[in-house]
Amino acid sequence: MERVRITFQPEGKITELPVGGSVLEATEPLELYIASPCGAEGRCGRCRVRVLDGSIPYDPLELELLRPEERERRIRLACRLKPSHDVVVELLPEYVYVQPRAKLEIQGPAVEVESGLEKHLVALKTPTLEDPVSLLRQIHRSLPLKDEEYRLDLEAVKALPRIPWGDGEVATATIWDGTIIALEQGDTRRAQYGVAVDIGTTTIACFLVDLITGEMGGAAAKANSQRFFGDDVVSRIKYTMEKQEGLGRLHRRLIKDVNALLTSICQEAGVSPDQVYRMVFVGNSTMAHLFLGLDPRSLGTAPYVPLADEGIEFRAGDLGIAANPACRCSFLPAIASWVGSDALAMTLATGIDESEGIILAIDVGTNGESVLGSRKEILCCSNAAGPAFEGAHIADGMQAFPGAIEAIWIEEDVHLKTIGGFSPKGLCGSGLIDAVAVLLEAGLIEPFGRMLGREEAEERLPHLGSSILNRLRREGSQNMFVLATEEESETGLPIGLTQSDVRELQMASGAIAAGCRLLMREMGIEEQDISAVLLAGAFGNHIRAESAVRIGLIPCLPSDRVHFIGNAAGAGARMALLSRSVSRRAFALRERIRYVEQAGRPDFQDLLMEAIVFPEL
Amino acid sequence: MERVRITFQPEGKITELPVGGSVLEATEPLELYIASPCGAEGRCGRCRVRVLDGSIPYDPLELELLRPEERERRIRLACRLKPSHDVVVELLPEYVYVQPRAKLEIQGPAVEVESGLEKHLVALKTPTLEDPVSLLRQIHRSLPLKDEEYRLDLEAVKALPRIPWGDGEVATATIWDGTIIALEQGDTRRAQYGVAVDIGTTTIACFLVDLITGEMGGAAAKANSQRFFGDDVVSRIKYTMEKQEGLGRLHRRLIKDVNALLTSICQEAGVSPDQVYRMVFVGNSTMAHLFLGLDPRSLGTAPYVPLADEGIEFRAGDLGIAANPACRCSFLPAIASWVGSDALAMTLATGIDESEGIILAIDVGTNGESVLGSRKEILCCSNAAGPAFEGAHIADGMQAFPGAIEAIWIEEDVHLKTIGGFSPKGLCGSGLIDAVAVLLEAGLIEPFGRMLGREEAEERLPHLGSSILNRLRREGSQNMFVLATEEESETGLPIGLTQSDVRELQMASGAIAAGCRLLMREMGIEEQDISAVLLAGAFGNHIRAESAVRIGLIPCLPSDRVHFIGNAAGAGARMALLSRSVSRRAFALRERIRYVEQAGRPDFQDLLMEAIVFPEL
Repeated sequence: MERVRITFQPEGKITELPVGGSVLEATEPLELYIASPCGAEGRCGRCRVRVLDGSIPYDPLELELLRPEERERRIRLACRLKPSHDVVVELLPEYVYVQPRAKLEIQGPAVEVESGLEKHLVALKTPTLEDPVSLLRQIHRSLPLKDEEYRLDLEAVKALPRIPWGDGEVATATIWDGTIIALEQGDTRRAQYGVAVDIGTTTIACFLVDLITGEMGGAAAKANSQRFFGDDVVSRIKYTMEKQEGLGRLHRRLIKDVNALLTSICQEAGVSPDQVYRMVFVGNSTMAHLFLGLDPRSLGTAPYVPLADEGIEFRAGDLGIAANPACRCSFLPAIASWVGSDALAMTLATGIDESEGIILAIDVGTNGESVLGSRKEILCCSNAAGPAFEGAHIADGMQAFPGAIEAIWIEEDVHLKTIGGFSPKGLCGSGLIDAVAVLLEAGLIEPFGRMLGREEAEERLPHLGSSILNRLRREGSQNMFVLATEEESETGLPIGLTQSDVRELQMASGAIAAGCRLLMREMGIEEQDISAVLLAGAFGNHIRAESAVRIGLIPCLPSDRVHFIGNAAGAGARMALLSRSVSRRAFALRERIRYVEQAGRPDFQDLLMEAIVFPEL
Repeated sequence: MERVRITFQPEGKITELPVGGSVLEATEPLELYIASPCGAEGRCGRCRVRVLDGSIPYDPLELELLRPEERERRIRLACRLKPSHDVVVELLPEYVYVQPRAKLEIQGPAVEVESGLEKHLVALKTPTLEDPVSLLRQIHRSLPLKDEEYRLDLEAVKALPRIPWGDGEVATATIWDGTIIALEQGDTRRAQYGVAVDIGTTTIACFLVDLITGEMGGAAAKANSQRFFGDDVVSRIKYTMEKQEGLGRLHRRLIKDVNALLTSICQEAGVSPDQVYRMVFVGNSTMAHLFLGLDPRSLGTAPYVPLADEGIEFRAGDLGIAANPACRCSFLPAIASWVGSDALAMTLATGIDESEGIILAIDVGTNGESVLGSRKEILCCSNAAGPAFEGAHIADGMQAFPGAIEAIWIEEDVHLKTIGGFSPKGLCGSGLIDAVAVLLEAGLIEPFGRMLGREEAEERLPHLGSSILNRLRREGSQNMFVLATEEESETGLPIGLTQSDVRELQMASGAIAAGCRLLMREMGIEEQDISAVLLAGAFGNHIRAESAVRIGLIPCLPSDRVHFIGNAAGAGARMALLSRSVSRRAFALRERIRYVEQAGRPDFQDLLMEAIVFPEL
């Protein structure tokens, strides 16, 4: 088969591709992650790259999705770009996945450290003909329990040859739940580490924790490299069903991602990955299935029931995780098919189950969940919001990284705040919410979501002045409000909010809001009965509570009752890692939370129709 | 690097070898096992092959070790034969390892079956939106204990996608010690298998057992393919210390051997290896170390103390064993450094620990053990007999396979019995004992082991007649007694017993007898206090008790007190497999057996000198 060479700039990475393959496919072995929310089907138009060298005919879908000025800049769609000769391609930063800020922000109540891990110092002596005691027996004899009370992990046995063995030498035995899981040379009692892992559909975050002090030793996040196969869980499930070896491929990607993070946080902290003896994983049910190598197809079709939703215990080595092979791992249990262990961990972190007042916790994300309750009763539901909050399916959307517009206000003209204060490149989730809230407030967007045309606005809202009204343009067949002009933007292209973008946000926000209202109705409470709204997820502290209220994403409450809690799933996983009693509480909690099903409920459809309409305050 | 082609006949197997490599090395990838007791050092001269095609200059060691008539037949030593061009080589059956008979003969008391394994039938139902119960929860709910009382092996989790899931479907859960280790489609409750494995230095034997009925489902044995690296444990230990990757290589060989046997017995019995859920392994300490991948060097140098001598529990998958990956495996504990779990298993099988009378059990082999005792007290020692009993280091020695001389008697002339009644090819262990016993009885060998020369014999033993006396010849610098002449033998070469052969047997038999006498002295008993002598090991039922008594191998007792018990280590492993209480008894037994060290005891040296002299009856 003939092959062509693809060079990616600015990285300078080079790979080969058979003729007929796409540039998107070529990024895979190089671990370059270009956005592909639609799963390389040529629908989303998000896998933009620039061809620096070489000319390849356009695919009809490219002609449809790329603007003339983009084509002039030789912008192409990587999934449609199939070179028949060597090419040099430039990756565009706004279309490459980076690590979202909020995933590393974890909070959560203080937890008394009782990880369940013990380390014991063992004094060794030189065996003699008169006292020929094997190394393993010497170790057993110096532990607090009797021989037969310990089990022994084969990994600890395999470590025996690495332990110098004679008078004056010492070794350290690591014990978990009555099993000796590790044996090490010297006194390593101070080295007891654990890692909490939050496996999100979009982003994976890892937290290194010192299991003696409870202190955080480091945190890192990266894009879930399964995103190459689609943005949401449904496209991933579809991929496993349609492609041979699809499941294996997605499974190996997750393991590789987790290992990359684990290795990097350990390296940064100067900790040997072999001294990570305990890990707690959380994630939605699809991620749990893919991580464990389980076929997720039953999650993809009605009645959407997983193969397994209970907590799964395993050893790191069983799944090829790069910690100590005998490291004891737990994947926390799910609450329901579409409310995974990440939601359970969020509930733990928010302390809903111990709260006097009623708390509403919302995980805002592609596959988010809402939990409503107090110590008396807890309800939950899932939110099929779609990826709009992460900048996907939005004309000039991008992830929250330097240059993204994250806040907008109008004072005579439009004012922007970008991440890092750079020239604007695009619109991230918090910027999108802000933009819609501001235009709603100004009357440029109607409650039903329609954006006014220029002439209509000049007529009805002349007080806004020309510097605002001039920003209303036609973009193809729809209205667009320009947030940053050609001159203001980094890319030389205008950055705007289109009518479609407003519709995307309406659907996303409406889905979450309708879910929350259904929970309130089930519990028989009103908005004002809620003592606190906690927003978790990709946003972190980066949206304004007023804007979230303005678009109806969260109940209309005073902003001091709204809190942003960052990565609550990661925080809950960390708590379960630090404390076996918290971990046990998680299992008990799971049985107390009632899942409220939305599918097939006509009243939910009504709530959804109501919630899609922006509130009139 | 230039390569040459080596063709092995009669198998017709072909391989390539870099120039400078030996024909012995070329056999390795083809799984052809030529004897190499000295570990390819050119000392033992046992790796004889015949070159059919091609001529390669002789190595000086070959000129030393090969007789002129052998060189005429183009016999060569495979370890010294380093072809610079393509050659065809014939394997000589008497130098190729085969499966010894006795390893498959197992006896031992009846055991009440209580393997610890349970299988439970689970009725499944189609999940619905109203009752969305995951597959794993359905399984948990139908088991006798509550959810939280079971642990779950990741292998059982991985099996979930293979279970059809709907009304009317059933599945079977396999439980071991509170852990669900397997999940299978349909009702498989009848399929509960276990395998006992006896890992000998020379031979590995596997026994398939039905864990419901206790019946034997099949047995198979094969040469331990580590033999390529030396006949005894000392050369294997040396190999791991001297060669890079030596330990890994020996380890992988054992795993491969066990897997070959496991697969073949399962196939023969129509059992899926995935339905082998429990395995018990026994072997000497060096085999235990190499099997587990542990560095055995501490066993090779004083004070000869192992890294681990306790029982080791693991899952088949942890070591790449081809049973169900979650199969629960136990390597039984050793009694002392040089008295391995094989001796413990032998003790179990012989029931010494429950006997009123005093029993002496001897495992006759390269690394054998003796156990003496009754329910009151049990002593043991190790026997460094060397490989003479297996036909190694014996001029015309061979393993016990068709054509081997296994019995000899003198009635006017010499009469032979060969295995299978074929023309004689060589002398196996039982034939060696018989030959020495017969010649001792005839006066042709003196008590101190000297073999008479022809003239001396004609003078002192003229009554033997010329047909016997003519058999005395000079072979190099030593006397030899011809058992089969050039005309009688299969090979066209005479088969004889040399003076050196007698010395080898004296040393081997003396080492065992002296060990037994030391045990008797420690216990303060005499030969006649022993109610039964049990002979286990490679001989099985194939030596005559009288001959064993005649050469002083076993105490001088009436032959009805001598019993041959075949593979007692295998029998004990099978008992531990069938019954958890027997398995527990093994652990307790280990603490009750006292190891009697021979090294550094002047009284043992005296006993050894006495035992080397053949008894005058």
